[in-house]
Amino acid sequence: MQLPSEPQKNLTVQGWVRTRRDSKTCTFIELNDGSSLRGLQIVADNSLACAPLYPQILTGASLRVTGDLVPSPGANQALELLATDIEILGPADSTYPLQKKGHTTEFLRTIAHLRPRTNLLGSVFRVRSRMAYAIHQFFQERGFFYIHTPIITSSDCEGAGEMFRVTTLPTGTPSKPEDDFFAKPTYLTVSGQLQGEAFACALGNIYTFGPTFRAENSNTARHAAEFWMIEPEMAFCNLEGDMNTAEENLKYLLTALFKTCPEELEFFNKFIDKTLVARLQHTLDKPFQRVTYTDAVDILLKSGKSFEYPVSWGQNLQSEHERFLAEEHFQSPVTVYNYPKTIKPFYMRQNDDGKTVAAMDVLVPGIGEIIGGSQREERLDLLEAAMAHHDLDPENYRWYTDLRRYGSVPHAGYGLGFERFLMFATGVSNIRDVIPFARTPGHAEY
Amino acid sequence: MQLPSEPQKNLTVQGWVRTRRDSKTCTFIELNDGSSLRGLQIVADNSLACAPLYPQILTGASLRVTGDLVPSPGANQALELLATDIEILGPADSTYPLQKKGHTTEFLRTIAHLRPRTNLLGSVFRVRSRMAYAIHQFFQERGFFYIHTPIITSSDCEGAGEMFRVTTLPTGTPSKPEDDFFAKPTYLTVSGQLQGEAFACALGNIYTFGPTFRAENSNTARHAAEFWMIEPEMAFCNLEGDMNTAEENLKYLLTALFKTCPEELEFFNKFIDKTLVARLQHTLDKPFQRVTYTDAVDILLKSGKSFEYPVSWGQNLQSEHERFLAEEHFQSPVTVYNYPKTIKPFYMRQNDDGKTVAAMDVLVPGIGEIIGGSQREERLDLLEAAMAHHDLDPENYRWYTDLRRYGSVPHAGYGLGFERFLMFATGVSNIRDVIPFARTPGHAEY
Repeated sequence: MQLPSEPQKNLTVQGWVRTRRDSKTCTFIELNDGSSLRGLQIVADNSLACAPLYPQILTGASLRVTGDLVPSPGANQALELLATDIEILGPADSTYPLQKKGHTTEFLRTIAHLRPRTNLLGSVFRVRSRMAYAIHQFFQERGFFYIHTPIITSSDCEGAGEMFRVTTLPTGTPSKPEDDFFAKPTYLTVSGQLQGEAFACALGNIYTFGPTFRAENSNTARHAAEFWMIEPEMAFCNLEGDMNTAEENLKYLLTALFKTCPEELEFFNKFIDKTLVARLQHTLDKPFQRVTYTDAVDILLKSGKSFEYPVSWGQNLQSEHERFLAEEHFQSPVTVYNYPKTIKPFYMRQNDDGKTVAAMDVLVPGIGEIIGGSQREERLDLLEAAMAHHDLDPENYRWYTDLRRYGSVPHAGYGLGFERFLMFATGVSNIRDVIPFARTPGHAEY
Repeated sequence: MQLPSEPQKNLTVQGWVRTRRDSKTCTFIELNDGSSLRGLQIVADNSLACAPLYPQILTGASLRVTGDLVPSPGANQALELLATDIEILGPADSTYPLQKKGHTTEFLRTIAHLRPRTNLLGSVFRVRSRMAYAIHQFFQERGFFYIHTPIITSSDCEGAGEMFRVTTLPTGTPSKPEDDFFAKPTYLTVSGQLQGEAFACALGNIYTFGPTFRAENSNTARHAAEFWMIEPEMAFCNLEGDMNTAEENLKYLLTALFKTCPEELEFFNKFIDKTLVARLQHTLDKPFQRVTYTDAVDILLKSGKSFEYPVSWGQNLQSEHERFLAEEHFQSPVTVYNYPKTIKPFYMRQNDDGKTVAAMDVLVPGIGEIIGGSQREERLDLLEAAMAHHDLDPENYRWYTDLRRYGSVPHAGYGLGFERFLMFATGVSNIRDVIPFARTPGHAEY
């Protein structure tokens, strides 16, 4: 609750009842309005005119309470409200599903419309809001322009498949794409990068922050069909500038987290992950290590560890490899760069060795990859060769290659998955618990 | 360009060539990096080692230029760059579509990947970014929490139809909804309000700012299939609080517009709408008028104007009526409230007269309706009666009525269409020109 820090006469507060307990002479109500973890203790004497209402003041009810904010004799709060009048705005009875504390997160997911009233989910969504704002602050303070790239798209950023189709055609009956709303097949975007590049090549530094989609049928704690992504793109920027901005970005967010969410962090550290605050502080304090993919593979091969997936040059790093690098070898966040071009998308800039591209991934302890980015191929001939190699139809990408045909510039960017960052920032281990209404295979309730 | 305000030796700048013209002894280049409307004049002497490059420095090419920033003898700029070296980063030839100034907006829409390089579209998208940030600042400074309501949804906020379907089922062949990704029919959201209410009833004050969709087959200058909407929702708030916040919100945005986009405003006022700045200033200075729907109908009936659509109590106000009220009668923004319940959605709060609901629309000169909102029906019995009247299946809205079953509170909110606001703020008359890549019937390029 946002309350005066000093005692005050005749204050009116509104909120929801968390608990109530009676003593011989009065009743104690813990009231919370959702604005913070900390609520307000109400002390209501049995001599008040409203005393007959007390038995109806149950967990979940909403109240308007007037009284005097006074120093509290209790150990848990500096001030408490000595009620002079209580009005029940909306009652709640014994069917209210959040009667007691200590529900499982699995149960809470079945009441996603009520779960933000709990300490855990309320804290998560307050953090989500403040971190979203911190993302805007970071980029706007640096002169980046926020661009809304399209959600419905006819192009497929990575040639990756696994997209949702968007249509107004009736289901099940034969129909022609030209009869559809957009007169062609359309999909939900998997990334705003390519369109973001067009704007970076016009306005300089831009970022996107919007929903992206994957129709992957994976039921894991880390995958959702709908999630939010931040994708900055910088003109006149190379891979080093890209890595610098990514590191600065993460540290800015963590600084904002410590500053704007101290109560929530304390709560997560106590109830979710006792190593959380130490890990975040460590990430904030350490300069990120940097290592080429080639050197990282050497480190893994020489580690003597037996990994589930074998390590060899030219293969993707698996989560276990990434976590070994960040947690055991470097014991710090680490940026791995210059990956083999065969495992990366067509738009990444080829290095002079002919074998690697100017890609980078930021790995953090406890999570693994949290940011992935690259310098983009700005040379038309090399980009067209890469597209041919990936079997992409040049006609579909004509507008994208135009950016190299007219005033091409070195440029670079990255993607930061917002939910993955939130899991890192809160210690919450299931992506379904950092999204207001999660969309996963079989689940699109509300 | 972000430049030092004082002369400086040995400065390096990068950007795109807008124009070049030669004199006998030197060449003049107007360079712009997209960060602002104002570019930089480069003066390059014919005696420089890079002089043989000059003929290749064509409109659209990207350059890196080093030189001394010195006072300019010209009238158009305080400082200019006396080049010592010029490097062409990316050439552009005579096929570059933005050779000359003065293209039509219709033509520019066909090159949406290049048009933000023009003065007009560059200005629009800088304003779009700064206004998006101002929206976050307004709400975050007031303790509202930003909520990402779902894009893919199985519920239809207004029972309104006209939604896009989201599916992974193959087109044209018979298939069952239970085989689809979410095991039921799903759509693109038309509003985050209902889900926003669930969060307001937990966290207090919240807002959404995200994409929303309409599959309406209308080809007008004011309709797009994909647009962004801001939807605040406030617990413990009635219609008056709602109207107050809406007015404060609009004025906050206009104040930020004048402060952060003075050059762009000057440009729009000169080239797009010569009455723009005066109209915005007027909106900012005047307290918004407030009038009930019933009184507004009286005013229209007594106006002696002949409208295309007849005026009668119980009918929706048409755009011509709204504009008469704002532009002619009140000559100021005006908030119309307490509309007939028969023309409003089921969730609006019924007034004691039994005939009207606590709805409000903010009308502004030049645009008409820019904000629509209401107090929500918080009384379970009245809400269920309204749902029955609208033929809504209570089972589908069980979670929504739960908000009235457990700790119901008076609450209110509104929707602000971001693109409609941008048209108001820039004077740009076609919605396609305030969206990076507009989606309209038959159009989903890029």
